[in-house]
Amino acid sequence: MNKYIISVLVENHAGVLSKVVALFSRRGFNINSLAVGETQDETVSRITIEVSGDEYTVDQVSKQLNKLIDVIKVKVLNQDCIKRELILVKVNAPSPARQEVVQISDVFRAKIVDISAQTLTLELTGAETKTEAFLQMLEPFGILELARTGMIALERGTNVITHP
Amino acid sequence: MNKYIISVLVENHAGVLSKVVALFSRRGFNINSLAVGETQDETVSRITIEVSGDEYTVDQVSKQLNKLIDVIKVKVLNQDCIKRELILVKVNAPSPARQEVVQISDVFRAKIVDISAQTLTLELTGAETKTEAFLQMLEPFGILELARTGMIALERGTNVITHP
Repeated sequence: MNKYIISVLVENHAGVLSKVVALFSRRGFNINSLAVGETQDETVSRITIEVSGDEYTVDQVSKQLNKLIDVIKVKVLNQDCIKRELILVKVNAPSPARQEVVQISDVFRAKIVDISAQTLTLELTGAETKTEAFLQMLEPFGILELARTGMIALERGTNVITHP
Repeated sequence: MNKYIISVLVENHAGVLSKVVALFSRRGFNINSLAVGETQDETVSRITIEVSGDEYTVDQVSKQLNKLIDVIKVKVLNQDCIKRELILVKVNAPSPARQEVVQISDVFRAKIVDISAQTLTLELTGAETKTEAFLQMLEPFGILELARTGMIALERGTNVITHP
């Protein structure tokens, strides 16, 4: 099973996200991650969905999505697109351990966004391999809380997914 | 109308996201942004939803969410929590304009993640005020494509939203 990123442009109405997500769940397709936000045109939102599956099934889902009203454009991105996710992670880091956590953060160029006597909260952006490696390094200290945005992606160069 | 961030911990099954999103759409509540990803416990996902509304309605939705099977915990975050979103933006930037776009990116500490003869693709992380200001500065050059993750958030200090 490969991971695919599907980029969906939709009309920015209440209920559209619900229809898109329902389509995946009807097909028993678990969504690894999903991010939705407005685009440069505020009447249009972009939903970025990461799913695991084979090429045939992803192709089928993409065709079904295209049939939904309010869906403007669907594109399965190719593997060399620019992928990024953002994570916020709160780590157990009382005094002697703190120095080591700060060191690890420096290596990954993570930002410290909050500190308390017991904890550090860190922000990191990157592709999945980077964020996963970072979390693995932090695990021995105790991860207290983790929020991740899910993957967003754009194609390289001048390729754009535009309105038809 | 204020903006509220609701953090929802759910079982990581197919269909759970669909139920949560459907609840918002049934109530005619438009979701400004939504991000979902796995937590440090891979059986649990965290859904971060930003909605506009009044306190009463947000409170009602939060109660309804709590009643859903597969929902582990719901919390409306207070306003001083750590909020971050990530954006990828592709800007029209042929040669003489490019320098100016690079300058703006430096000021905002955005990263250049791709370049072509005609375009620059930039990555920026921050709170909404920062990302909005950045986009406003880039608008005159021509924004070709924009993907944003939607807001994720954690509370400050040692506060954590944990399983019951």
